[in-house]
Amino acid sequence: MGGDHGPAVTIPAAISFVNHVHDAELILVGQEDVVRAELRRHKADAHPRLSVVHASEVVAMDDPVETALRRKKDSSMRVAISLVKEGRAQACVSAGNTGALMAVSRYVLKTIPGVDRPAICTLIPNQKDSPTYMLDLGANVDCEAQHLHQFALMGSALVSSLEGKAKPTVGLLNIGSEDIKGNDVVKQTAALLRADHEKGILNFYGNVEGNDIFAGTTDIVVCDGFVGNVVLKASEGLGRFVKKALTDEFKRNPLNMLGALIARGAIKAFSSRMNPSRYNGASLLGLRGLVFKSHGGESAYGYEWAIRRAYDAASHGLIERISRSIAEFIPTPDVIAAPASAETAPADLTPHKTA
Amino acid sequence: MGGDHGPAVTIPAAISFVNHVHDAELILVGQEDVVRAELRRHKADAHPRLSVVHASEVVAMDDPVETALRRKKDSSMRVAISLVKEGRAQACVSAGNTGALMAVSRYVLKTIPGVDRPAICTLIPNQKDSPTYMLDLGANVDCEAQHLHQFALMGSALVSSLEGKAKPTVGLLNIGSEDIKGNDVVKQTAALLRADHEKGILNFYGNVEGNDIFAGTTDIVVCDGFVGNVVLKASEGLGRFVKKALTDEFKRNPLNMLGALIARGAIKAFSSRMNPSRYNGASLLGLRGLVFKSHGGESAYGYEWAIRRAYDAASHGLIERISRSIAEFIPTPDVIAAPASAETAPADLTPHKTA
Repeated sequence: MGGDHGPAVTIPAAISFVNHVHDAELILVGQEDVVRAELRRHKADAHPRLSVVHASEVVAMDDPVETALRRKKDSSMRVAISLVKEGRAQACVSAGNTGALMAVSRYVLKTIPGVDRPAICTLIPNQKDSPTYMLDLGANVDCEAQHLHQFALMGSALVSSLEGKAKPTVGLLNIGSEDIKGNDVVKQTAALLRADHEKGILNFYGNVEGNDIFAGTTDIVVCDGFVGNVVLKASEGLGRFVKKALTDEFKRNPLNMLGALIARGAIKAFSSRMNPSRYNGASLLGLRGLVFKSHGGESAYGYEWAIRRAYDAASHGLIERISRSIAEFIPTPDVIAAPASAETAPADLTPHKTA
Repeated sequence: MGGDHGPAVTIPAAISFVNHVHDAELILVGQEDVVRAELRRHKADAHPRLSVVHASEVVAMDDPVETALRRKKDSSMRVAISLVKEGRAQACVSAGNTGALMAVSRYVLKTIPGVDRPAICTLIPNQKDSPTYMLDLGANVDCEAQHLHQFALMGSALVSSLEGKAKPTVGLLNIGSEDIKGNDVVKQTAALLRADHEKGILNFYGNVEGNDIFAGTTDIVVCDGFVGNVVLKASEGLGRFVKKALTDEFKRNPLNMLGALIARGAIKAFSSRMNPSRYNGASLLGLRGLVFKSHGGESAYGYEWAIRRAYDAASHGLIERISRSIAEFIPTPDVIAAPASAETAPADLTPHKTA
């Protein structure tokens, strides 16, 4: 039901996905009459691998987190996440309000033992063959070194799962490549990651700078949610600006238009490579269940990419990989339970600031 | 002497600048024989508005700040800044090591009364007619609200000077537009800026997000140096990636090449609009003298832009504007010396926790 377009986008994406992936089953969660009407419109109301679970409420894009968490207990978002909790679904995909999705997911699913805070991780195109995975993108505006450290472990497990890389490289986002650069949190994180690297737990590349994200210097780029969110949105903004400036120039006179027409193959290939829809589908990492977030304004094409990412993560046992990776580092959950529980147990109801 | 190319770039830029701006005089500071040889190469050794001041040492691009500050006391950087201090020059332009330039400038010139920390401010192209000015870009990795507040006042004075806007708009970089978004430092800063806005000191727009930088939503975007540095470098990286991806596609086959040839006017106009050289010349704001920093890898064309910005700032009395703007807000430097936050922040703000 979520996102800017609701079922008009999510249902066609779901139909296309099950038609392409023959062992996948999708449970469509939402207001049953609306969902069924949309399925009928696409002549898919009798599809054997599409079922509907009714949820009477919808979390609006501008609903405060508290509303999603405390009032709308029968929202499509909450019901879909509960299906994951109950083991009836292997992953949940939503185009809804990010803050609400994170808060409800955290409340319903809880975090993996050893993870203090879940993080949001997305893919970013770069100059290499496989994308850059960047986290956190806005779930955590204030991070300490242990949080960034956990993000690195989780991101590493995610890239192993989705890209099949045994030892993906981890870069720590900083304002210079030298060890002396950056603030205290970044320096402390670097020390933790270097120690992991020496133990063979992680493949730590070292500090990376803003330009390394698009150069594809490392598979994973770790940063706090404030920096990650700003960089991601700035990149989206620059992308739109470039697109508009280029289009304006091509339209300026008939000669330019003719050139663009002749080279339309190049322009199309370029647009396709840069198309953010191909990179749609951010993961909410660190939860005891898979939750993927589609961009709210996505097309059916983009939403299908988010479903595909969720399917891949479920097929490759992402949760188990993350749990193992975190457990490898942190002796037992009981050890950390003492100082951490004050933050994680009651704080589950009052999630920290989200984007 | 600084930058990746030294006098091979700075001297031609200087010659071109004085030939375009007839009331400008440039003092070229560096190893006299090297500078004079380069001037002769361009047949400009007798130019009436170009003089040379000898400095025996050069700060290398990888010199630690301490070396620039304590050991190389006769560096071209130090001597050039001292000319500003002595009133023999109205501004200094350098393509050298940024950290060293900031440290030496701060040591030699000192800060304007009421300014705790100088900041680096640069121009960024956007969808509108006048660029976005963003600060800080890396001088201050950990900022408190009072620092961001001072950046806003200084940025505002800069844009008034360089763009001739009486009331330039100020945006505070955040992860959402709503007041409740962001970390404590950003929220406290917003409160300070709103208070200034009500008093008519500043034109505070409110929170802006990453995409607003390139949309040109506000004239000025204020952030801490960590975020600013990462965003700027990420944008440069994305720009290079886009350029390469587009060039690759145009070169892929003869038809695409033909199209690109026919539309070369469009491609040239686009490249020129996006050309980072046109936006070269960051200001080190908050010092008792004008210092401008050129990108180290710039061409003579880009370096000339940095000289032009320094000239414009000097012509429009930037230092006086900043001093007035800061003084308007902060009663006297002696008052803020003791309990800064108690004096500057409204009573309802509690001091934020340090990272």
